[in-house]
Amino acid sequence: MKRFFLLTVALLTVWAAAAQMRFVDATELNLIGKALPTPHPYHRIDTVAYKGFTKGENQQVRCSAGLALVFKTNSTRIDLEPQYTSFVYAGASTPRVASEGFDLYIRKDGEWLYAASRAPKKRGEAYTMISRMDSSEKECLLYLPNYSELTSLRVGVDEGATITPMENPFRHKIVIFGSSFTHGVSTSRAGMSYPMQIGRNTGLYFCSIACSGNCKLQPYFADYLGDVKDADAMVFDAFSNPDAKMIEERLIPFIERIRAKLPSTPLIFVQTIYRESGNFDLRSRKIEEDKRDMARRQMAEAMKRFDNVYFVDKADLTGTDHVTSADGTHPSDLGYWRWAQNLQPELLKVFRKCGIR
Amino acid sequence: MKRFFLLTVALLTVWAAAAQMRFVDATELNLIGKALPTPHPYHRIDTVAYKGFTKGENQQVRCSAGLALVFKTNSTRIDLEPQYTSFVYAGASTPRVASEGFDLYIRKDGEWLYAASRAPKKRGEAYTMISRMDSSEKECLLYLPNYSELTSLRVGVDEGATITPMENPFRHKIVIFGSSFTHGVSTSRAGMSYPMQIGRNTGLYFCSIACSGNCKLQPYFADYLGDVKDADAMVFDAFSNPDAKMIEERLIPFIERIRAKLPSTPLIFVQTIYRESGNFDLRSRKIEEDKRDMARRQMAEAMKRFDNVYFVDKADLTGTDHVTSADGTHPSDLGYWRWAQNLQPELLKVFRKCGIR
Repeated sequence: MKRFFLLTVALLTVWAAAAQMRFVDATELNLIGKALPTPHPYHRIDTVAYKGFTKGENQQVRCSAGLALVFKTNSTRIDLEPQYTSFVYAGASTPRVASEGFDLYIRKDGEWLYAASRAPKKRGEAYTMISRMDSSEKECLLYLPNYSELTSLRVGVDEGATITPMENPFRHKIVIFGSSFTHGVSTSRAGMSYPMQIGRNTGLYFCSIACSGNCKLQPYFADYLGDVKDADAMVFDAFSNPDAKMIEERLIPFIERIRAKLPSTPLIFVQTIYRESGNFDLRSRKIEEDKRDMARRQMAEAMKRFDNVYFVDKADLTGTDHVTSADGTHPSDLGYWRWAQNLQPELLKVFRKCGIR
Repeated sequence: MKRFFLLTVALLTVWAAAAQMRFVDATELNLIGKALPTPHPYHRIDTVAYKGFTKGENQQVRCSAGLALVFKTNSTRIDLEPQYTSFVYAGASTPRVASEGFDLYIRKDGEWLYAASRAPKKRGEAYTMISRMDSSEKECLLYLPNYSELTSLRVGVDEGATITPMENPFRHKIVIFGSSFTHGVSTSRAGMSYPMQIGRNTGLYFCSIACSGNCKLQPYFADYLGDVKDADAMVFDAFSNPDAKMIEERLIPFIERIRAKLPSTPLIFVQTIYRESGNFDLRSRKIEEDKRDMARRQMAEAMKRFDNVYFVDKADLTGTDHVTSADGTHPSDLGYWRWAQNLQPELLKVFRKCGIR
């Protein structure tokens, strides 16, 4: 009897190993979220064509923040086999699930419903994102890592299952350029950056050029953005990284430089959020207040000089109870969720004025 | 002129280095959050005296989750110099700020207001938690790391500043035994575990024996809890780790074992939360449903057999919009915040029945 049991276990083991997954390269599916095409599938900006970025900025725009794969499958299990460059993000407030993991949503009753989020235990290995699902056809939205550089990605499905590219389910094209906040630093997973949340909530298509710590109204970013001719609007979290002096010196020339290439694209600037570091650190409080004041002054001037330039200056986007900070600077998921909830109606108001519905 | 400038820079550098911080050992202050005293200052359970724990459980109860230092200081800056054992937590959903960093609150107008949260860049070095504050006397609540084992901790203040131990600002004593949820896995920082949130909100004193993945109604934990004679109540997140069969077999004997030592201490069991992994993973959904059903059945039996045993079985503690998960199992800060907000009134109802106000 014991021998029979062992034999059964051995056979089951062989059967499980033989339950092979079939892997397809992600480039055969549909990768969305890029403002302009790039030769490298998982880079957000072609850093060979666009020059002037610092080494850190170059690295960041080669990270896959805001990119997502959309596909249909009837597989009961989805595996991933990502390959990364040696770059590893070192930020202390961001978990690995967000910086190098993937975040999967499946459409149910017309809504994007959370399915799974997971990073590989060890880089270089295939791993299972989700299993034991029913075998109906599913529409999948898979966010790529926020803060890693991928060299390749393969998606595994049950051997007999189908997997096909899916059309971009989002409408219009809104480029969002921003700081670590927009990048999603300290979110729990890639789908919780506030642009991705607003995208899922509204169905609008956000292409993120978030560049943690480096959204400083640089002319070379203006040159890049100016080439995105088919954007319906651009949103800027542009007052989080520069100090007041930089905002004073750079904002108008930055807009001028974009306007030279894009005479009428709506440009929507968003005020930077309150930072919890200012609760007791008096210097941090002053620096942030100065930035917000300068943003207000310069935006008043910008809106006089340029058409179709907007300023969303709403206070308390992350609430007033001071419980939302991960590290004094970046919100936690609680803060990012409130941010998305509170910013969304403000952005929609401006979008409607611009014919974006 | 250039030479004068360089000389000034050199002098300022020397002056800055000379702006010495005075360090005091944390054992000179007041460390709160321990259910029973331990010889080692930063262990939660004396693993020499209490036997039976697995290697993993031993490691976890030597981690400082739920412990906090309370002190008063008029320093404008607070530095920390923690020393750790070689143990490093590998969970992919928890950022370093939570697993090895510290989380500082300062009392303002009677409320605990977030001040700073930060992990050292490199273990073994002193680092600045907060600086540039005014020099009024402040009441500080400093949460220790959720998932690290400390060997020592020193707190640095301005050389001329005072730092003194503070009385425990929390009242009553409520021991909470639980899983990774209670431990705070995937919170952004130690102060965001739901027991610590409820503690700050209500002023009640929670001592956490959370043991990630290992809250399985083990008899040796019952023996330990039975020794906490001065607890006003005990709360259990005891249905998150065991499967239905384990709950069936172990719950009644576990309560019996505690009751042998503590005939009347109120024991409050809390239903486990909905796991987002069950949105599409049918097996995960079934396992969790079975656990919840079995918890209901066994708790009905327990409340018949024992006095002062309660069951809080409230659905949707983390909401119904399915956006709160960090990894399919653990909530993000958004989920933990909702959990604290929704569980708190239910717990307070039971506490009031037990004379805990």
